[in-house]
Order: sequence, then C-alpha cells, then structure tokens
Amino acid sequence: MKPKKKSRVSRPVDPLHAPHEKWHTALTRIEPNKILVRGYPLDEIMGRLTFGDTIYLLLMGEMPSPGIGMLMEAMLVSFIDHGITPPSTLAARNTATTGAPLRACVAAGVLGFGRHHGGDIESCMEFLDEGLALVRTGTSYRDAAAEIVKRCEAEHEAIPGFGHRFHTRDPRAARLFQMAFELEIDGAHIQMIRAVELVMAGRPDGHALPVNIDGAIAAVCGDIGIPPEIANALFIISRVPGIAAQAQEERVREHPMRQIDPKDAVYDGAAQRRVPDKRR
Amino acid sequence: MKPKKKSRVSRPVDPLHAPHEKWHTALTRIEPNKILVRGYPLDEIMGRLTFGDTIYLLLMGEMPSPGIGMLMEAMLVSFIDHGITPPSTLAARNTATTGAPLRACVAAGVLGFGRHHGGDIESCMEFLDEGLALVRTGTSYRDAAAEIVKRCEAEHEAIPGFGHRFHTRDPRAARLFQMAFELEIDGAHIQMIRAVELVMAGRPDGHALPVNIDGAIAAVCGDIGIPPEIANALFIISRVPGIAAQAQEERVREHPMRQIDPKDAVYDGAAQRRVPDKRR
Amino acid sequence: MKPKKKSRVSRPVDPLHAPHEKWHTALTRIEPNKILVRGYPLDEIMGRLTFGDTIYLLLMGEMPSPGIGMLMEAMLVSFIDHGITPPSTLAARNTATTGAPLRACVAAGVLGFGRHHGGDIESCMEFLDEGLALVRTGTSYRDAAAEIVKRCEAEHEAIPGFGHRFHTRDPRAARLFQMAFELEIDGAHIQMIRAVELVMAGRPDGHALPVNIDGAIAAVCGDIGIPPEIANALFIISRVPGIAAQAQEERVREHPMRQIDPKDAVYDGAAQRRVPDKRR
Amino acid sequence: MKPKKKSRVSRPVDPLHAPHEKWHTALTRIEPNKILVRGYPLDEIMGRLTFGDTIYLLLMGEMPSPGIGMLMEAMLVSFIDHGITPPSTLAARNTATTGAPLRACVAAGVLGFGRHHGGDIESCMEFLDEGLALVRTGTSYRDAAAEIVKRCEAEHEAIPGFGHRFHTRDPRAARLFQMAFELEIDGAHIQMIRAVELVMAGRPDGHALPVNIDGAIAAVCGDIGIPPEIANALFIISRVPGIAAQAQEERVREHPMRQIDPKDAVYDGAAQRRVPDKRR
Repeated sequence: MKPKKKSRVSRPVDPLHAPHEKWHTALTRIEPNKILVRGYPLDEIMGRLTFGDTIYLLLMGEMPSPGIGMLMEAMLVSFIDHGITPPSTLAARNTATTGAPLRACVAAGVLGFGRHHGGDIESCMEFLDEGLALVRTGTSYRDAAAEIVKRCEAEHEAIPGFGHRFHTRDPRAARLFQMAFELEIDGAHIQMIRAVELVMAGRPDGHALPVNIDGAIAAVCGDIGIPPEIANALFIISRVPGIAAQAQEERVREHPMRQIDPKDAVYDGAAQRRVPDKRR
Repeated sequence: MKPKKKSRVSRPVDPLHAPHEKWHTALTRIEPNKILVRGYPLDEIMGRLTFGDTIYLLLMGEMPSPGIGMLMEAMLVSFIDHGITPPSTLAARNTATTGAPLRACVAAGVLGFGRHHGGDIESCMEFLDEGLALVRTGTSYRDAAAEIVKRCEAEHEAIPGFGHRFHTRDPRAARLFQMAFELEIDGAHIQMIRAVELVMAGRPDGHALPVNIDGAIAAVCGDIGIPPEIANALFIISRVPGIAAQAQEERVREHPMRQIDPKDAVYDGAAQRRVPDKRR
Repeated sequence: MKPKKKSRVSRPVDPLHAPHEKWHTALTRIEPNKILVRGYPLDEIMGRLTFGDTIYLLLMGEMPSPGIGMLMEAMLVSFIDHGITPPSTLAARNTATTGAPLRACVAAGVLGFGRHHGGDIESCMEFLDEGLALVRTGTSYRDAAAEIVKRCEAEHEAIPGFGHRFHTRDPRAARLFQMAFELEIDGAHIQMIRAVELVMAGRPDGHALPVNIDGAIAAVCGDIGIPPEIANALFIISRVPGIAAQAQEERVREHPMRQIDPKDAVYDGAAQRRVPDKRR
Repeated sequence: MKPKKKSRVSRPVDPLHAPHEKWHTALTRIEPNKILVRGYPLDEIMGRLTFGDTIYLLLMGEMPSPGIGMLMEAMLVSFIDHGITPPSTLAARNTATTGAPLRACVAAGVLGFGRHHGGDIESCMEFLDEGLALVRTGTSYRDAAAEIVKRCEAEHEAIPGFGHRFHTRDPRAARLFQMAFELEIDGAHIQMIRAVELVMAGRPDGHALPVNIDGAIAAVCGDIGIPPEIANALFIISRVPGIAAQAQEERVREHPMRQIDPKDAVYDGAAQRRVPDKRR
C-alpha cells in the first residue's frame, strides 16, 4: 500500500470558506466509556494480549498467530537497546544533559533513526524483493543473490542488511533465524538473504560483513507479510525503551550541561548472567 | 532516585583542554559480538522474555515476577492508542501530511505528551504519596483522602488521576484494578485512590470525575515499586505504537498538505468484536 | 559541496578502544572570553551587522554585499509566517495545547517542513539548473523551459516552485523579483523561471499555477550563489519566528487540551494598514 | 499575559458530536493573494523592515522604534552560535551523522534549549523583578540586590544570569550593556543587574561569576518591555541559525555514523579579523 500520489498543488481555495470533508480512520474507535482497537474493546485486550501482540494488532489489523506473535516479541526485543554507542542515543543524552523533560529526549533520539540507522530494514526488504523477482523468472537463488550484490557494488552502495560497526557476527540475527526455523516460518526472503550471505562470504572482505539484525528483521518481516513501512515502524517502536532508559540514566547519574564523550563511558552494571531455566 | 542537584555553573574551563573524565552506564554492555542488557545476553532473552518483560528489565534492572510482568503488559496495552482525539496524535498527523518521514511524525507526537497529557501519572503518584504520608501518622485512609482533595481544591487544581475528556467511567482503569486484585498485587496506593474515589463521588460534580487510566497506572506503579519517573517513561513507550500507526494511516490514506479537522473524522474499521476464547 | 559518499560500514572496531581522531569545524571559535564567528569577534558584530547579515555570514563564510544583504532580509521576511494554515503550524499548536514548553512546540513545527512544505526550494533549484544546463548547450531559454516542464509532466510530478494552495498570484514572489531587478542582481536563474512562467501560462490550467515564493527564493538563491542545502536552511530559519509566535498565542489565548479545527479560526488582529513612509 | 488557568478536565463530551467553536488569532491574516502580518501586507514589509524588525513586529504586535530595533538585532546576533560546545549543538550533530534531514537535526537541537540552557533568561527576569519589587517599597538597589542574592543562596540555587561554563567575562553581555547605554534605553532592570553584579563581586568566588549573556538579555528585555515568554522565544529564534549551520557542516564535512567526541574538535576556519570600517 503506497501513499497516494497526488499533485502537490491543485486549485487554490479560500481556507476560511472551504467545505468540511469527511476523512476516515480504521484504527481505534472512541465512544463515551468505550475504546475499540481494531474492533476489540481495549479493556478486554488488557490481560489477554501482550504489548507485542497488541502492537501487531494495531499495525496489521488482526491478531497475530502464536508463532508470528513470538517472532514479533523477539524482533521488538532484539532492537531494544545498543548501549551508548548509537548517535540517536547520544542525541538523547545530549538533550537530557540540558535539563529537558524525558519526552523531549526521546523525541531527539527518535529523530536520529535516520538513513544510516534503522533505515536499512526498508532498503534491505527492497533489495531482497529485487532478488526474489529474479527467482520468479527462473533464476536460481544463488545467481539472483550474486546479481543483486553486483548491482549494489556497481552503484558503490553498501549491501543493505550486512555489516555492523561493532560486530563481526551479529548474535541477534543468528537467534532470529533460529527462531524462524524452529517455528517453521522461514520462507523465500530468509532463503534469499542466506544466499546473499554465501555470496558475501566469498568476497575478499566478506567475513567482516555478516548479516546484521536489520537484515534478519527485513527477511523475517518479508516472510510473515509485514510490509516495509510497518517494519520501519517496528524499528522505531522497539528502540524507544532504550532511548528512554538511556536518557533517564543520564538525568539521574550525571551532572547537567556536561560534554558527553562516548569514548569515556565505562560500564558498571550487572555482570554477565544467564536467563533462569524457568524462563526457557 | 532524584537527579543530582548541582550548581549550574562552577569554575569555567577551557573546553579544548579539559581533562577526559570517565562516566558510567549500567544498562547495556556492548562488546564485539556480544550485547548484554542488564547482564543478560540479548540473544538469550529473545524468545524467552516478551517485549514488556524486557522493557521492565531495562528500566528496573531485574526481570519482573510473573504477576508484575502481567500488570506491565496490561499497563502498556491500556495506553496504546486513543483514536484521533489526542492533540499529540493530531500533531503527528499534521506532520505526516507534510510528507515528513515516520520518525519525524513520531517525534512530533511524543513532544505532545505534555503537562496536560500523560503528565498526570507523575502528579497523581505524588498526590497519593501525600495521602499515604498522612496515613503513616495515624490518619485513616478516608480522612487522608478528604484532606488531600481539599488541598488540591484550595489551590484550584484538578485532582490528578480523575476525570476524562470523553469518558464518565474509564474502562481501562476498572480493568487494571481488577487485574491487580486478582493477582493479589493491590496495596496501599490502590487503597488510597479508592478512598479518594469515594470522596469524589460525594461531591456535587463527582460522578463526572471518575478515576482515569492515569490514576489507575499511578496507583498500580506505586504498589509494585515503579518510581514516578519510570512510570512517565512507560507512558511514552506505550503510546508510541499508536502515534506510529496513526501517522502511517495518514500517509497511506489521505492526500498531502490537507487541513486536518478532527471533528470530520469517521471511523470505518472493523465492527466491535470479542477476543476469541482461546486467548482468555 | 556534497556530503562525503562513504560506505556505511567498514571494518568493525571495539568502540571502547577506538583511537581519538581529530575532526574539524570552521564556523565559530570558542576561547575563554572570546567568541569568533567566521573569524569576527561576536561582540564586534553586535550593533554592526543585522541578524540577517550574520545568518549569511555564518552560513556562507563571508559578509554579504549590501545588495545581497537586502535580498537576504527580504527572503527571510517573506516566509516568516503564513497564518494558521500550514500543517507545521497546526502541529506546533497541537503540541502547545498539551502544555508542552515552547521549544517542544517549535521542534514539532520544524519537523513539518517536509517534502511537500518548504522542500520545493531545493527541488526548484535543481529544476532550474536542469534548464540552465540546456541553455549552456545552445538551447534558448524558452525551449529549455518547455523541455523541463515536459519532463516533469511525463513523470506526473508537480512543477516545483509553481502553484499555491491559497494564492493564484503570490504577492511575495512578485516583490522579491522586483527587488532583485532594482538591485540589479537578477541573473540566469530568474530568467529561466520567468521562461517557465510563460510556458505555464500557455497551459489550460496555467493561470492557477503562478510562481510561488519557493520558486522565487530558489531563483534568487541560484543567482546570488546560495547552494540548495543552504537555501533549505534559510527556509527553516525564516519560519521559526512564525511557529514560535503561533505556539505562544495558543498557550496564552486558548484553553489546554482542545481539539484544534483550523476551519473554525477567526482573525481578530489589527486591520490592514500601510508601512509608514519613514520606513520606505 | 499568563496562560489561562483552567481546570484540565470539565464535563466529558462526545468528541464526534461536539459543537464547532470559533477561536481567534491576531497574528497573520491569510486571504487569497494577500498575507497581512499584524495588519501590514507582507510584500510591503519585504525590503522595508529587516528580519529582526519583523520578528519584533510578529511577536509584539507593533514595529520597534529604531533604538529598540537595534537592540533586537544585537540580542539576536549575540546568541547566534557558540561553537560545538553546547549540548544542543551536539544533539543536532549526532542527529546529522545518522543521515537525518536538516529539519530533524534542527528540531533535535531546539529540544536541548532546556532548563539549564537558555532557560536562564526567564528565571533571571523573575529574579530582577523580585529585586525591583523591593525597590518600589523603598529599599535601595544595593540592599535589594543583596537580599535577592541571599534568597537564592538560601535555596542553594545558582544566581540566574551569572556565570558561564567557559567565560570569566562574557564579551556579549558587556557589548549589549554598552549599546543600551549609548541608545539611552537602559532602565531599572539594568540598574538592578549592575547592583547584583557588585554584590557578586564582593563574594569569595564572585570574580568567576560575571553577568552572562542570559542576564544581559534578561535586563535589556525587562527595560524595553519584552515579557519573559517572548524573551524565551527570542532565544530559540536566535540560536536556530547556529544549529542549522553546525548540522549542515556535520553533513558536509564528516562521515556518517561517527562517534562525536567534542574534545577532539579542532577549529580550522578563518583567522581572527576585524569588522571593516564601513560597517561601523
């Protein structure tokens, strides 16, 4: 579903005497003492659906199947925070140090989910779809993967969904693929990104450019029918708790109006620990 | 945990020659190929904790008990959207109609979580704590409630956590109290807000001013040990999916640069329906 | 000067042990008790340059000539406000009604300077440059104008810099061209947009699509050597006072948490009046 | 003019059937082919008023006198940029490095004009007014100054308008006072801040806490009748060009997704130079 293409300017009108035109919303119905999200009473959803399920319901219009619900939770969890390293987090902390309220810090952070940060999910979905279009014309996955990588390189563009500033192997991507496999939800998009991975590994610098979490989410979203613009919304939703927690920590632990140098940060939290067995 | 009170200005320094000072973070540890959230490997959390559980872990430092985890999900769900009525949603839609990217719409929406919208949770927690301070000195809940209501009225201030622009009975508040009761998590804060409710019902205009969802969340957060500034973060986190869904709907369904009149909106989504039995 | 094209991801590094790399700024030098903007002591500029001159100095690196300085002021003035009609203004007012601080309202407004609002300056500059490239190969202005209009129409795109939602003749555009003419600063870009205007007037719906202020600013900026990305910055800078004034009026004159319907607005300010002679 | 105090919640209403209520704006009248700012045709203002004059007109409702117009320009110029040191600037640069558009960077920067940054103007105006209230009851300026400083210290609060992170003598404040003196616009507020300055100089650490530019602007605004909330708007308006220039420099000169360490910045712009004589 693409945004309507309309000419930006049509007949000018006098704004004070324009007629009232009805417009439509299919998300949430508000009546006195009643709130219906996609038709379901919100108070009936509370305690029955998780936050992750309800996010899916709101964005996609229907409740997720149990398997898709589990993948949704895992995708939302996978992006929740990446320490003090992302520029969006540093924008939020720089806003927090001025004494701004938490919502302003979160807004500043969200604005940094830019072209180079999070934007990879949408471009990776288009990249994989380009490969799958070739597959539908009879090309093998392997050849299709080689072809779309070649096209990127011809444009001097980075391969979307591959490589990470800090990780040579992204543990979140591996886990997401494993879950999709166990839940038997892996389809053509995951197969295509695996094929690209093989092509990349054959390149001289390939080992430093593994599938990252953007790529894994792009492939999983493709396979469970989440369109690119909703995948983009998921990324924003998933990182907001991290931005809020980082901004709140800045407000509580540091003095105001400081110059924030990311290289001077030291982790002093809980030591590494295992998720208890009962949670497994 | 209050922000450090420090004088805004101490000795001036030459910024280009200031020494490097270490600073600390206890949230997420980033090492090559390893992401530890509060000590737990993120890939181990994926598939084991829900998004709601992980939000609690990130903000509070430990995993929630099962009961608190269920209340967390319910609180996050309760605020997820309120249709096209909130000014924050209209700010996001007005930004969307200019052709701005989704993250800019979400940021504009989050900025509208102002003093009069969402801010009630924090002030209601302080309000209830004021009542509980009286209880600890021997005053009855009923008298303490009457006293704190009287203080608000003397200041010509609205009672925080009571009344709603559209609802005379907030279905979300009722459901949250019921869940807290069934999970045996209700404590002194819920008892205090119930006492205030009785005081309010005895006033001439009291029936139009029931406990709202801000009040219910304030009371529940008080009873499960979530401090006011974290409750405030929860509100922001919970509404972001709604803001994103509304902005995305604007981008997809409406034409650009329109004048958005909330009174002209018509709901055309799913009819009212029940949550299927298997989800109960 | 285009942004450096760099691969988004190169070798991953351990963020905590990365070396310190120097980076550079040529805008403002800060030393104890000294602030140099583009080399000039800020206290020496105060009282000698106007705000408009100093904006030019900061963005372009040198002081403007008197004529360019006058056009700068006129361009900044031309965009300062457009009443309550722009979605960006309505986003700022919707944020103000929540009780948010002024800076949050301004930020929400700025985010609405999107693709369909303000973005036209950059695209119109590219559009005119496309025409001027044809002129340099020997095509006449008239034929070049016809050609670039035809290309836009083939793409079903609006002609950038032409048409306005409310005005059939944009008084700001006419005034800016007049000033450029009187200051003898009009060059190839203005000639090109005039040629496009003639082509447009010959179309069936041409009279409803005159040059707008975006188009006029694009042409003037082209002729005085302001690059597209700086022209874009000028647009943001020029509208911030309008956004701030509108948000401040909302805070002072209206009650909180109202539903803002732009069609219900009534102007009750000063009646039309002339600029006094001594200002002429 | 204070925001209307209204109860946040009155009778709930059905949003879909609420009556249309007219609301009012006195800033800018939009009619087809006509834009009137405070009654003046915008095209008539262009070329006759500077941007600074028009900002005053829009915010205050009338054109400034020549003297006040000059002080307006000087105040707007004084705050235009402070290099890479302010956290708001670093928030904008951190947003720019993600590839976000310029307006998103500007919004992120504006959000950092928080309590500890810019907010001092409003609190300094209230501080000076407190002193002037004492003067009106017969106290001398000297004694009033000592009293309000004592009150601040009793609350362990910083003296608003005094001290700077980098400067022991703020060159912008000195210049602004000199201009006010030469234009014979200095009145009671400047006299009061001078008295506070003398009290501060007598303290053990007083020499490190001179009047800063926030204090100077607060005093001048007080003397020329600009209310605190408009002074606050001026601060936002004046710094936006600096934020935009810094974000634009980041986009053009640095590579994306870098970790921005303010201590590693090196100035490489124009050497110190004098404003040419003809501008004096």
